[in-house]
Amino acid sequence: MNEGSYTEGIFSWPVRVYYEDTDFAGVVYYANYLKFMERSRTEYLRFLGVEQGTLRAENNCIFVVRQALVDFHQAARFNDALSVQTSVKLKRKASILFHQRIEKVEEEGKKLLICSADVTIACVDAGTFRPMRIPRFLLEVFERDS
Amino acid sequence: MNEGSYTEGIFSWPVRVYYEDTDFAGVVYYANYLKFMERSRTEYLRFLGVEQGTLRAENNCIFVVRQALVDFHQAARFNDALSVQTSVKLKRKASILFHQRIEKVEEEGKKLLICSADVTIACVDAGTFRPMRIPRFLLEVFERDS
Amino acid sequence: MNEGSYTEGIFSWPVRVYYEDTDFAGVVYYANYLKFMERSRTEYLRFLGVEQGTLRAENNCIFVVRQALVDFHQAARFNDALSVQTSVKLKRKASILFHQRIEKVEEEGKKLLICSADVTIACVDAGTFRPMRIPRFLLEVFERDS
Amino acid sequence: MNEGSYTEGIFSWPVRVYYEDTDFAGVVYYANYLKFMERSRTEYLRFLGVEQGTLRAENNCIFVVRQALVDFHQAARFNDALSVQTSVKLKRKASILFHQRIEKVEEEGKKLLICSADVTIACVDAGTFRPMRIPRFLLEVFERDS
Repeated sequence: MNEGSYTEGIFSWPVRVYYEDTDFAGVVYYANYLKFMERSRTEYLRFLGVEQGTLRAENNCIFVVRQALVDFHQAARFNDALSVQTSVKLKRKASILFHQRIEKVEEEGKKLLICSADVTIACVDAGTFRPMRIPRFLLEVFERDS
Repeated sequence: MNEGSYTEGIFSWPVRVYYEDTDFAGVVYYANYLKFMERSRTEYLRFLGVEQGTLRAENNCIFVVRQALVDFHQAARFNDALSVQTSVKLKRKASILFHQRIEKVEEEGKKLLICSADVTIACVDAGTFRPMRIPRFLLEVFERDS
Repeated sequence: MNEGSYTEGIFSWPVRVYYEDTDFAGVVYYANYLKFMERSRTEYLRFLGVEQGTLRAENNCIFVVRQALVDFHQAARFNDALSVQTSVKLKRKASILFHQRIEKVEEEGKKLLICSADVTIACVDAGTFRPMRIPRFLLEVFERDS
Repeated sequence: MNEGSYTEGIFSWPVRVYYEDTDFAGVVYYANYLKFMERSRTEYLRFLGVEQGTLRAENNCIFVVRQALVDFHQAARFNDALSVQTSVKLKRKASILFHQRIEKVEEEGKKLLICSADVTIACVDAGTFRPMRIPRFLLEVFERDS
């Protein structure tokens, strides 16, 4: 199974661009970058020992995206090997602000910035979708991580 | 909202091809035809007065796809206006076999067959996913329709 | 085929939520709102007489998303009938800023705001992806529209 | 980056189920299994030293799906770690028949069969989409592999 890496507060998750991610303009369809970024957030939580399925079953808590400010810098293309980075920018009682970047490694180690985003994730009740405090153990996990 | 049409046992649902449906080969990505076909099945049920959300809430019953035999004849492209047809081929106690076709209307009324499929849909318990009989009222709806 | 409507500078495009748009949290998966918004932009251009396929073939020009600032207010769910609105907020030489809103009409005409966004679209060369001026006829179409 | 494995004629590619792959019935949306299978076919070709981007650029040749006979046995769910297998069943002048299986490894090494398919892939001219013979070097690659 795929493996992420972590260094100096930044978690990186590799993503390969397949046919399904591209459109007839020859590049990755813009909404699919948001899928890549969600995979990196999920794998970052998994890396910290947090499984969202368990969070839902045991704490009745799920994460929803409240806001996404996304800049699309360069197009990624079919077969590109991308690195999707996630880091915590700000922690609040019921939400977390992540900074995310998608990069493509080119020849000679040069990096091409594809996409960058500030994404606000809120913790809500899985049944009612009302805001709830982020469970203590989760905040502590992020504390250890900062 | 979009409108379907029904004649001689065949329900037709219009679908437009957008950027999101295409890939960098310049045509509709193959898995997306299965999305179009599912929309047509859902709208056919709606046309017959059956809402799957209600079926789930009141009868604890959902439909899952058991088998799909799909032939891809011609490629559909960006901006194409397609007609996605659904008809009942066979009814059983716990499953229905639908025949589906996706066509593109070209100049002078000529029709281009894009995709055709035999799709077996099973009725299952929404919680356990075990097979269950199709609710009586639903079989009667299809009886009226044949 | 589906029909949009236009009033006082705002173009509205209807979208139905299908199984394909939802996720196991029971709501529309966040990236799919960006697909709905792109359909509305495409249909708005079509409404103004502009076909992106033709723009590409004849003017070698395509539109790419440079930035999307998206607020997710309320969740949309399976079977919801949504209205996806597009209006021009600002026109530049090589880019246009659209404001977009996704609403759900509830009982008694009450509207629920699902999602709102400011989306910057740039005009680029279809081959090189370098910025290019928006073709004159297109700016005039938007002038007539403002 | 993710890694596949190969043994006795069967190539296996790992796939993780994310939010984007699920629907509100709580399971993987059926069309997404076809995405997983396409990733495995692409990675199998890559494993054999064949890059589809290069095939297109140098041989003007792309692969399209002509037929897919898919059986959906059990549902896969959020967070599941799946193994998507691909093997060559039959080789013709202008098409290849692949057999594919998606499995989930459960406790004690028990395997759960999620989905199985016979998928016919045709070689076509990238411009005209007319059938063309599979390039000799590619048939030889598969010969070595059988």
